[in-house]
Amino acid sequence: MSTETSEQLKYMFEPRSVAVIGASNTMGKWGYIVPANIIAGGYTGKFYPVNPKANDVFERPAFKSVKDIPDEVDLAIICIPAAAAPAALGECAEKGVKTAIVISGGFGEVDAKGAQLEKDMLDAIKGSHLRLCGPNTMGIYSGPISLHALMPPVRPIQGKIAFAAQSGNLGTQLMSLGRALGVGFSRFVCIGNETDLKAVDYIEYFADDPATDVILLYIEGLKDARRFIEVAGRTSSRKPIVVLKAGKTEAGAKAAASHSAALAADQTIFKGVLKQTGMIEADTTEEMLDITKAFAAVPLPKGRRVGVVTWGGGWGVVTADALARYGLELVELPQGTLDELARVLPEYWSPGNPVDLVAALDMSIHFKCLEIVARCPVVDSVISLGTMGATSSFQAFALDRQVMDDVMREHIKPKVINSDFLKQLQRTDEAYRDEVFDLMQETQKPIMAVSLPTAGATSPMLARQHEVVIYPSPERGAKTLAALYEYREFLEQKVSLV
Amino acid sequence: MSTETSEQLKYMFEPRSVAVIGASNTMGKWGYIVPANIIAGGYTGKFYPVNPKANDVFERPAFKSVKDIPDEVDLAIICIPAAAAPAALGECAEKGVKTAIVISGGFGEVDAKGAQLEKDMLDAIKGSHLRLCGPNTMGIYSGPISLHALMPPVRPIQGKIAFAAQSGNLGTQLMSLGRALGVGFSRFVCIGNETDLKAVDYIEYFADDPATDVILLYIEGLKDARRFIEVAGRTSSRKPIVVLKAGKTEAGAKAAASHSAALAADQTIFKGVLKQTGMIEADTTEEMLDITKAFAAVPLPKGRRVGVVTWGGGWGVVTADALARYGLELVELPQGTLDELARVLPEYWSPGNPVDLVAALDMSIHFKCLEIVARCPVVDSVISLGTMGATSSFQAFALDRQVMDDVMREHIKPKVINSDFLKQLQRTDEAYRDEVFDLMQETQKPIMAVSLPTAGATSPMLARQHEVVIYPSPERGAKTLAALYEYREFLEQKVSLV
Repeated sequence: MSTETSEQLKYMFEPRSVAVIGASNTMGKWGYIVPANIIAGGYTGKFYPVNPKANDVFERPAFKSVKDIPDEVDLAIICIPAAAAPAALGECAEKGVKTAIVISGGFGEVDAKGAQLEKDMLDAIKGSHLRLCGPNTMGIYSGPISLHALMPPVRPIQGKIAFAAQSGNLGTQLMSLGRALGVGFSRFVCIGNETDLKAVDYIEYFADDPATDVILLYIEGLKDARRFIEVAGRTSSRKPIVVLKAGKTEAGAKAAASHSAALAADQTIFKGVLKQTGMIEADTTEEMLDITKAFAAVPLPKGRRVGVVTWGGGWGVVTADALARYGLELVELPQGTLDELARVLPEYWSPGNPVDLVAALDMSIHFKCLEIVARCPVVDSVISLGTMGATSSFQAFALDRQVMDDVMREHIKPKVINSDFLKQLQRTDEAYRDEVFDLMQETQKPIMAVSLPTAGATSPMLARQHEVVIYPSPERGAKTLAALYEYREFLEQKVSLV
Repeated sequence: MSTETSEQLKYMFEPRSVAVIGASNTMGKWGYIVPANIIAGGYTGKFYPVNPKANDVFERPAFKSVKDIPDEVDLAIICIPAAAAPAALGECAEKGVKTAIVISGGFGEVDAKGAQLEKDMLDAIKGSHLRLCGPNTMGIYSGPISLHALMPPVRPIQGKIAFAAQSGNLGTQLMSLGRALGVGFSRFVCIGNETDLKAVDYIEYFADDPATDVILLYIEGLKDARRFIEVAGRTSSRKPIVVLKAGKTEAGAKAAASHSAALAADQTIFKGVLKQTGMIEADTTEEMLDITKAFAAVPLPKGRRVGVVTWGGGWGVVTADALARYGLELVELPQGTLDELARVLPEYWSPGNPVDLVAALDMSIHFKCLEIVARCPVVDSVISLGTMGATSSFQAFALDRQVMDDVMREHIKPKVINSDFLKQLQRTDEAYRDEVFDLMQETQKPIMAVSLPTAGATSPMLARQHEVVIYPSPERGAKTLAALYEYREFLEQKVSLV
């Protein structure tokens, strides 16, 4: 299944050795920052600084040329001025270096002279097996070998999402956000000017990559649209591809032309591409992570029918609206299921979906109702509101300094908040994650938790995001569920066509 | 301007004395939780527990009946079973208590017997001046006097937003979220069953309330639609009203009927109500805070023309798309402004809007460009991407335990990260907030900052949210700007009609 290109890209994303051409001890230079990120990031392979004017860089002996390195070089990272890049690549080609990333800018994105330098780079690698990422790229990240060959100080969480972005800034910022939200990445590449390797080449590599379950794309324009559509369509039937297409409006297209010189595709055409390839569109940058994290963690829903379990009525109403808006069905629960729920809930419970837990403080009621709804045969997926993080929220309140001061001053007697109480709260969130994870394993239905972020209590909410997913609003949970179902439908159509 | 009702509601939101009927030392009872929240919340007025079976509650002498309290009572909070509520209210009326909140549930939302109890409560207060919030309410919050008369353990930040919600759960959760995001509230009321006081009464009070600049509503259905429309329209020309209308879809309306017995208005009718009253619609729960926090902090844009200053190209493209989507204009900057920018930015800068800061690490460049764009006469508002929080993001990275360990183990020499460096980073975010605040004062144009949340670095981003606003994505910043402009247009139409 794998192609020559994707075989070659293994050297870029799993290099046994990395040379940095232009490595430097001068703080502030990219030749300083990129190696600093690589070393601090814990890359376990061999690292060779290349600098004709230094004896050592980062306390390692420096080589005058890449050709002097007494070892095979899988990846060369070029941090020297644009004008010197073609010659450096020529030496890499001569040396038999497998892949190169040209970090430097000052090429086609600037002027005609720069565009000529891109042609010169292609000439320099012509006839060799050397493949080229960039130029004008912020670099790559590779989780399994802890390689942070990046310009910005970003340290992503390792996960199953491979991300190719036609913007290093947006890409690395989203990985930072992923770190804050508990969303992990297997690989990342800032695509850059696509002088040699194109967006589609990375998709092809990610498709075969065992470390990757989901592919995320930020695209401004396509240089090889026909092949992109062909490869994306083929890949989608194996792994979901989530894409944000920027430059969809006239203003956006104009901005994109100035940013990445991308030729923006007409929005109608792009909608057709989505339909044809089965790629899932993210409408906003937040949705890029919302949707990919779900693909990486939860089963796909087999149908549109959603059961909602909510701690409070209002959130249930908002969720009902959101489901309808995104084409999902708030399913009518069968009488048997309602009877089961009635046995667990107080007699004043009003039977129906959303299942309103009528503010039950006993968490075991939450768990029992979640089980009943998840196991109900007419339910394809579940949204659970308020249970996850409820205790974190209480905990944040309890740990709030002002509240603690009040307790310490014994304004309140008997003392409510003590360490046993806090431990108990913590246990509930942990137990809930277990419950959701186990239920998803058992039923093979996605369960989306919705829990508002709480000041000072983010970490307990984020733990195990690779196994369960938590959304900060009902609307975002519902929209993500719709994206999962859209992909499921695509897969079914594929199967029915075969 | 103020009405009799809004005069009466002052006693509810600014009581000099509060009696809790059913106050209890038994943990877990609402009669325990509500007073605990009041006392821990730091309410400075007088507090009188009423409980015929206890000598003291929370170490304060308990009264057998509200009538025994040797003081005026501005607010009575009723935490006893529904069946006993009418009699308790009768005593309150007799005593001359000004306002009451019936926390207890078990009324019209449950059955016909409960509905009868609501009628009995109305009978009990008939002929008196006593006004009634609820029943079936989670209570109220009042920032200026630090009154947390609430069921859930929520401690909002004090601010300028008054919030009336037809869901206590959703309302109090949003105030928790506000705490996490730095969004503050002046008042909150969980509207409950509206036996006496209706949603519209609270709007009338908020309209006159000097502590309130913005009004936020969560509405499932209206009991007094004609008066609501009249009051909302009148209020909107003085203070913005942001509203999320739930139950907009058939599924949502059905859920609302079961939750708050609200008669859902047809969506088309509601759109008409929005147009007529000038209320601003929040499409999602997240937008409820996104939009209100902006109304509470920044000037209104005088037109559609937006200048964008961005640290990176990709975010700029996404913002251009979002502006177009929400009906705003990415304005073409005049040559003079472009020339000014060119003098600050490197020569390879590509002139245009968005103003791409071409990854400048020197923060003074960010500041200068922001000033030039904000002062440009054709610019009505500014979106600033990446500058705010850039240093927080670096700081979070630098403070990351693993990175610090690497530094401590001296993997990297020379040491990049030391305490001076960290202080410098902190200063930049502070300086940026000053810059944005001062520029808004000077130009009277809104400046929306976009900064991704970063793990462990939330607080520096959130500081001074009452003076500057920060959004977690370009799309949310742009959509909020559109809401501000929509309100500005409403005000102008009002003026032109007069």
